[in-house]
Amino acid sequence: MTKMRESEIIRMFIEEFDNHALGDDAGFVRFNDSWLLVTSDMLVWRTDVPDFMTPEEAGKKVVTMNVSDIAAMGGLPLAFFFSLGVPENTDEKTLRGIAKGINKGAKEYGVKIVSGDTNEAREIIIDGGAIGRGSRLLLRSNAKPGDLVCVTGELGRPLTALLLWLKGEEIPPKILEKAKNPKAREREGIELSNYANSAIDISDGLSKELWEIARSSNVRIVIDEDKIPVNEEVREIVKDPIKIALASGEEFELVFTIPKENLGNISFDFTIIGRVEEGEGVYIKREDKMERLPILGWEHLKGGDYVNL
Amino acid sequence: MTKMRESEIIRMFIEEFDNHALGDDAGFVRFNDSWLLVTSDMLVWRTDVPDFMTPEEAGKKVVTMNVSDIAAMGGLPLAFFFSLGVPENTDEKTLRGIAKGINKGAKEYGVKIVSGDTNEAREIIIDGGAIGRGSRLLLRSNAKPGDLVCVTGELGRPLTALLLWLKGEEIPPKILEKAKNPKAREREGIELSNYANSAIDISDGLSKELWEIARSSNVRIVIDEDKIPVNEEVREIVKDPIKIALASGEEFELVFTIPKENLGNISFDFTIIGRVEEGEGVYIKREDKMERLPILGWEHLKGGDYVNL
Repeated sequence: MTKMRESEIIRMFIEEFDNHALGDDAGFVRFNDSWLLVTSDMLVWRTDVPDFMTPEEAGKKVVTMNVSDIAAMGGLPLAFFFSLGVPENTDEKTLRGIAKGINKGAKEYGVKIVSGDTNEAREIIIDGGAIGRGSRLLLRSNAKPGDLVCVTGELGRPLTALLLWLKGEEIPPKILEKAKNPKAREREGIELSNYANSAIDISDGLSKELWEIARSSNVRIVIDEDKIPVNEEVREIVKDPIKIALASGEEFELVFTIPKENLGNISFDFTIIGRVEEGEGVYIKREDKMERLPILGWEHLKGGDYVNL
Repeated sequence: MTKMRESEIIRMFIEEFDNHALGDDAGFVRFNDSWLLVTSDMLVWRTDVPDFMTPEEAGKKVVTMNVSDIAAMGGLPLAFFFSLGVPENTDEKTLRGIAKGINKGAKEYGVKIVSGDTNEAREIIIDGGAIGRGSRLLLRSNAKPGDLVCVTGELGRPLTALLLWLKGEEIPPKILEKAKNPKAREREGIELSNYANSAIDISDGLSKELWEIARSSNVRIVIDEDKIPVNEEVREIVKDPIKIALASGEEFELVFTIPKENLGNISFDFTIIGRVEEGEGVYIKREDKMERLPILGWEHLKGGDYVNL
């Protein structure tokens, strides 16, 4: 018996595959004259749904997670599909809540529900997926030296909510809001497909996503600590707001790199947090010191390192 | 707590959905000038993988199940995607076997692997899906009075293998072969899209699939007991070969209805088992008596009724 981490398992699968398009936010295949984008993302109730979420919120979140992956490729989301694993003793109210949430998400993002399947399983599992259409794809491997590094929205609330919840403390409503009901940046993704060079959605934390872009694009990314858009409530509550903002996942904000001359074309709010340079790695400027940025994703927090807020 | 059957759960979900394309072998959405077909089908190791199957066979079967759904719509399979649920103590050999099987299936059916995701779960779950392109869809709701009812291949081996296995008896190699390595009829599906009126793949047993077509198309289907293509080895082993052939699922053969004048265009082997008439229900001619056909799918066998071979 070998204990493999999730990323190692996927790497092993990729080793075995002859014809694949894995490794970005969504896979893609040519379809008529467009790119057909496909992504799937599984939610395991026991580990992925804290009890402050309702079944409806969980159902909607599965749609959001998948639409967000399409958005991060610069695609137009078209369709959602899912498979359910359902233990025998699951109550109808929970299932109906999940159904309502999926419907709500599908309406919000304008996607058609094209496939649904259900099976008896030991725990509740909602495996969702989305399909989109793209013309110019925002690959994480396409960041160019000279690009500015930008991010939508504000960071920190989902992780703050989770850490307070793990400690059994009350979660302020404004913090809870985004943890319960995150939104995919589907309109922003489509707009960016015309102007940005690369994009990724923040599902595992800003620091991890920046490393993904830097590695895939063979570039160096330098960000400025002062520029990171930390949410105001998070700043008031936690000891190290920057660390929380760098580690907070399931934000579904978009990180993108874009040539400076294209900035004027963007119609939505965003924050410039750094730039792309020749070289490798991700660096952060703190006051006047430059530090190599560690990866602070949730996979790395599980040990409990940062549970102390 | 309410105990709901899988079909009831899906019906409840459909009630809640405003914009969906559920209820056929695969969902569909317009994409440029074609139909984009999407299906997903979950395999739960504990309940769906008997121990006579290797991990590689299970991995390949997930591809087959999904490609078969695309074939049953008359679509060209383009892409495969999956999510894995993996318990912590899963050995690497099992996972690598699954990966090899998925790759084998993808090569056999010429599909690109476009998305893969993995999560920690209580049991091994492989949730797969496929995407295809269709021009003229073979809906199960489009059977027309006057059509002939046809089926590809031979029936009975998967259920016979399963029943022998449940009894702890040896399974003859020729019976085992199809249970371990079923094949999707992807070329037949594409050819039929030009000539047939409706089609469905046999995942839950011939009798259940015939009822699906009859109900969805508002027609009567009459089949002839003597015409059902029961596999020769199955005929030699079991007491009631017709019952087994009607109930045997995971055959992945195609049942289709087709106007008589189009038969000459079909280049592959198939068997005419009956015809479509005005009316409702599914009937079977046994000697000179006409009987209403009961649904004999696996969901109905679980009680153990037919374990006695």
